[in-house]
Amino acid sequence: MVRLGANQYGKAEVRLVRIARGAGPEGGDLIRDFNVSSSLSGDLADSHLTGDNSKVLATDTQKNTVYALSSDLGPVEPEVLALELARHFVTSQKAIKRARLKIEEYPWEPVGAAGHSFARRGGMIRGTRVVHDQKAGTSVVSGVDGLTVLNTTRSEFWGFPQDPYTTLAETQDRVLATEVSAWWRFRSADGFDGPGWAGAFRAACGALLAAFSETYSYSLQQTLYAMGEAVLGALPEVCEVRLALPNKHHFLVDLAPFGRENRSEVYYAADRPYGLIEGTVLADDAPADPLAWSP
Amino acid sequence: MVRLGANQYGKAEVRLVRIARGAGPEGGDLIRDFNVSSSLSGDLADSHLTGDNSKVLATDTQKNTVYALSSDLGPVEPEVLALELARHFVTSQKAIKRARLKIEEYPWEPVGAAGHSFARRGGMIRGTRVVHDQKAGTSVVSGVDGLTVLNTTRSEFWGFPQDPYTTLAETQDRVLATEVSAWWRFRSADGFDGPGWAGAFRAACGALLAAFSETYSYSLQQTLYAMGEAVLGALPEVCEVRLALPNKHHFLVDLAPFGRENRSEVYYAADRPYGLIEGTVLADDAPADPLAWSP
Amino acid sequence: MVRLGANQYGKAEVRLVRIARGAGPEGGDLIRDFNVSSSLSGDLADSHLTGDNSKVLATDTQKNTVYALSSDLGPVEPEVLALELARHFVTSQKAIKRARLKIEEYPWEPVGAAGHSFARRGGMIRGTRVVHDQKAGTSVVSGVDGLTVLNTTRSEFWGFPQDPYTTLAETQDRVLATEVSAWWRFRSADGFDGPGWAGAFRAACGALLAAFSETYSYSLQQTLYAMGEAVLGALPEVCEVRLALPNKHHFLVDLAPFGRENRSEVYYAADRPYGLIEGTVLADDAPADPLAWSP
Amino acid sequence: MVRLGANQYGKAEVRLVRIARGAGPEGGDLIRDFNVSSSLSGDLADSHLTGDNSKVLATDTQKNTVYALSSDLGPVEPEVLALELARHFVTSQKAIKRARLKIEEYPWEPVGAAGHSFARRGGMIRGTRVVHDQKAGTSVVSGVDGLTVLNTTRSEFWGFPQDPYTTLAETQDRVLATEVSAWWRFRSADGFDGPGWAGAFRAACGALLAAFSETYSYSLQQTLYAMGEAVLGALPEVCEVRLALPNKHHFLVDLAPFGRENRSEVYYAADRPYGLIEGTVLADDAPADPLAWSP
Repeated sequence: MVRLGANQYGKAEVRLVRIARGAGPEGGDLIRDFNVSSSLSGDLADSHLTGDNSKVLATDTQKNTVYALSSDLGPVEPEVLALELARHFVTSQKAIKRARLKIEEYPWEPVGAAGHSFARRGGMIRGTRVVHDQKAGTSVVSGVDGLTVLNTTRSEFWGFPQDPYTTLAETQDRVLATEVSAWWRFRSADGFDGPGWAGAFRAACGALLAAFSETYSYSLQQTLYAMGEAVLGALPEVCEVRLALPNKHHFLVDLAPFGRENRSEVYYAADRPYGLIEGTVLADDAPADPLAWSP
Repeated sequence: MVRLGANQYGKAEVRLVRIARGAGPEGGDLIRDFNVSSSLSGDLADSHLTGDNSKVLATDTQKNTVYALSSDLGPVEPEVLALELARHFVTSQKAIKRARLKIEEYPWEPVGAAGHSFARRGGMIRGTRVVHDQKAGTSVVSGVDGLTVLNTTRSEFWGFPQDPYTTLAETQDRVLATEVSAWWRFRSADGFDGPGWAGAFRAACGALLAAFSETYSYSLQQTLYAMGEAVLGALPEVCEVRLALPNKHHFLVDLAPFGRENRSEVYYAADRPYGLIEGTVLADDAPADPLAWSP
Repeated sequence: MVRLGANQYGKAEVRLVRIARGAGPEGGDLIRDFNVSSSLSGDLADSHLTGDNSKVLATDTQKNTVYALSSDLGPVEPEVLALELARHFVTSQKAIKRARLKIEEYPWEPVGAAGHSFARRGGMIRGTRVVHDQKAGTSVVSGVDGLTVLNTTRSEFWGFPQDPYTTLAETQDRVLATEVSAWWRFRSADGFDGPGWAGAFRAACGALLAAFSETYSYSLQQTLYAMGEAVLGALPEVCEVRLALPNKHHFLVDLAPFGRENRSEVYYAADRPYGLIEGTVLADDAPADPLAWSP
Repeated sequence: MVRLGANQYGKAEVRLVRIARGAGPEGGDLIRDFNVSSSLSGDLADSHLTGDNSKVLATDTQKNTVYALSSDLGPVEPEVLALELARHFVTSQKAIKRARLKIEEYPWEPVGAAGHSFARRGGMIRGTRVVHDQKAGTSVVSGVDGLTVLNTTRSEFWGFPQDPYTTLAETQDRVLATEVSAWWRFRSADGFDGPGWAGAFRAACGALLAAFSETYSYSLQQTLYAMGEAVLGALPEVCEVRLALPNKHHFLVDLAPFGRENRSEVYYAADRPYGLIEGTVLADDAPADPLAWSP
């Protein structure tokens, strides 16, 4: 009376640093720092039910494939590597019907002019998630995590319901800070040649930052919507944006007991709890894509 | 041409330690250590589009409600607190159509016999996720995270495909270790009176451990299926189990260069990459519940 | 006009899982889960100044040595492994005058009765730090980290100075919680045969827990002193105890705005900031040992 | 026969975000993001032995003082705030003989030109540790943590001892990567007016990066020495530099089994174990300062 439901398996967090010798500016090196995870699904009931592994491409093999294909492809954008890997697994293994690839990229900046030294940028992570399904085709979602931003002013929060548990004071001026997680779905997996993915990432980040900075905010929800709208405005190739914005509360410290006035200058940055605002902004004509966002 | 899609907001990680004086064995105290997150959705377009917050129950209010209802309810099981909170938000706020509550519980053990001292158990976390929707009703999913287990033997892995990227050696005896994340869906939110939830948790964990230990394993997939089946066997009130099992690789160290033989006794515990096996085991008659597992 | 000062180098965090087949109760297996770090110092100026590595035992070699000696020694106590390694490095390499070994041990518990299944205990970590110096001899310091404990009552805090920045209310009854880091120095590295180290660890942890539970506390400082004294009382072989006790604040939630009284039952567990109480308790006749605690 | 040894107590991780309105370029705001920890010691035996807290300035009061003095001082360098706090605690509390202040600063960058928006820089943390002792005077040590750097070439490692446990191959060309923790001791706490501390930090970081990049390396020890020497060369006010450099191993992936050659382009970035190189570089005339580096 018991049966196997949805399942997938793969190798998580394959750390790949891809250096391209002499491919950088003025003959220096290029470096790409990736964290690659693959998940395969398909005709895999036997492994679960009988221990027959004849259709289970080993996760160790998946790891090897990441390195081999990266060697062949060179220092490509993460979307390009993810697409190649996803298609490879589905086309080369008869039992595999669907592959999900997830890549995080950690940014580095050149140090000095010699072309061989780099410092890790820190702070934000570029990401992509690709699904290639034998029947449903290919989806690409790209995004950014860990982009922490703060406005010192131009943020209000008032007019909210007063129920028996409400004690929060209304405010006409607060610090608004969040750690942006924003991911955007492309209309097509074929919309770009390789370097276009990098341009899309830069444009999306620029739109997110500009919208965060320029929106006079009455709620983090309003800011979220403006940020999603800005990405859609900047990238016609994108049809959907999903954002998760923790409200990193900065509370004004009460200095009155010490005989000081706090003129909105001294704040306590709280850890927990935090507000968490999640939302989706869509183009009206966004096609359905049930696989793109599933985990 | 742009519109608001799915959205929710709430207060994440409200740390609540609920002590019940004199309610423990022999008149000692009881302690429950919770991390509570709430997410509300409903008629919230205005806040996103115009900054009108008249329907946005403040996340600070949600936090207050967690504390107030916990005060009323006493040291109840996390499922009971989550259900009460979820129903409270939906019934008390006209604009709120759906509430998701997530609670983690950190276990503590008594120290000595005096009844007022405790040590944190560490290692595993009990959890529950409740969705209460005005139309679709109520779902309860409970689970365990961080349960790290290891078998020193009775695990094989061989017979997998040999493609051009395969270098993994077959093995007839390996260490198998994983950090269990297992979550089970109840057929009904009303299946238990309060303490029954605790019994279900104990039974599920017992079934997981027994199945992990007793399954002679040809793959972690096979072990996963056995673990899910065991939970369903132990709990007729449960209709679905989802597991995520990282393969925490323990590699045999090659001692030959130092003139020693490694008789399966000296291992290197690797960090990354790791296999990740995810799967669902279902009762044949499990009813559909599209909201229960959505994030 | 610039010179090299103190220096050391080594391999950090060598993850070693040592299984002893059939050595457990009723013929089952034993498992020890170690994280080993070595640091060597001595006649190493050349490597810093000229790049001559002829005296630099490679950190990779240090890692190999951990595995090889663990193979030889079997499932010994961490102090025994650390002592063997420390002496090995100093005696086998002429240029190495001093070795520091640090081992963390993660505890596991048996699952079922079959003898091959284990669950990680979580919560606390046993540790040891050994220094072997060619001239100064050998020191052993052992300890526990991550032992989180809480008293629901029998803790007061009042009578502290009132300066212009003091707003804290006095309290006659508070929750007292801390994450114990306690380390004890042995009078001699030779005081125990192998299994005695395990007994000392159990006795020290028992003394720490009993003192924490049984001390009616007017300050965490007072509790700290009682805990250190208890370890010295339990272990005559120990001459010094160092403790670091973060005050994991549990603040009573003000329920008055919601029409409830908080009868010391509903608490908010805060993250940051936290008090941090550090102190040493010594036997009067504790010999000086300048190397034992240096980093 | 038991006595109290060295002890200190304080408030750790006071999160302070100090905004200065209109003090930035073109009338925008300035922001400083600090994590402040204080530790006091002195005549504190009573609190440990009898629970008399009359000399124990509450850690809550220490936190309040951080906020109040930051309000008074404005957006000063972390060294200035730490010095003021340290002197305040020692001079205002008779029982307090010594104060240690530790401040971490998280860097932010402006977003756009409006002057009110910022993005957290990530990646590296500026720090300072100040000790003010009633008798011994004042020490200032400043530093940087989390500065991750990588050279794609110009790093060798060979000529190391070959003992029975050595299997590492010699290399004439490897990737060298580390996460720099570097701290420098100032000759005097009074060497700078306020803004000079910022200039010293910039100069030190510049020297560290240049030395890392420009040193043709035969060992990470050699690079460490060059980096310390460079800081001393750049900052005559500094007399000692301490560095801890984990060797973040990047291993060349063996592509031969897949029929590819790896021309030093495809690497696996390992987590654990890692080499750890620690060393001190001193000016010949560096005065002794036993308190500056003690924890």
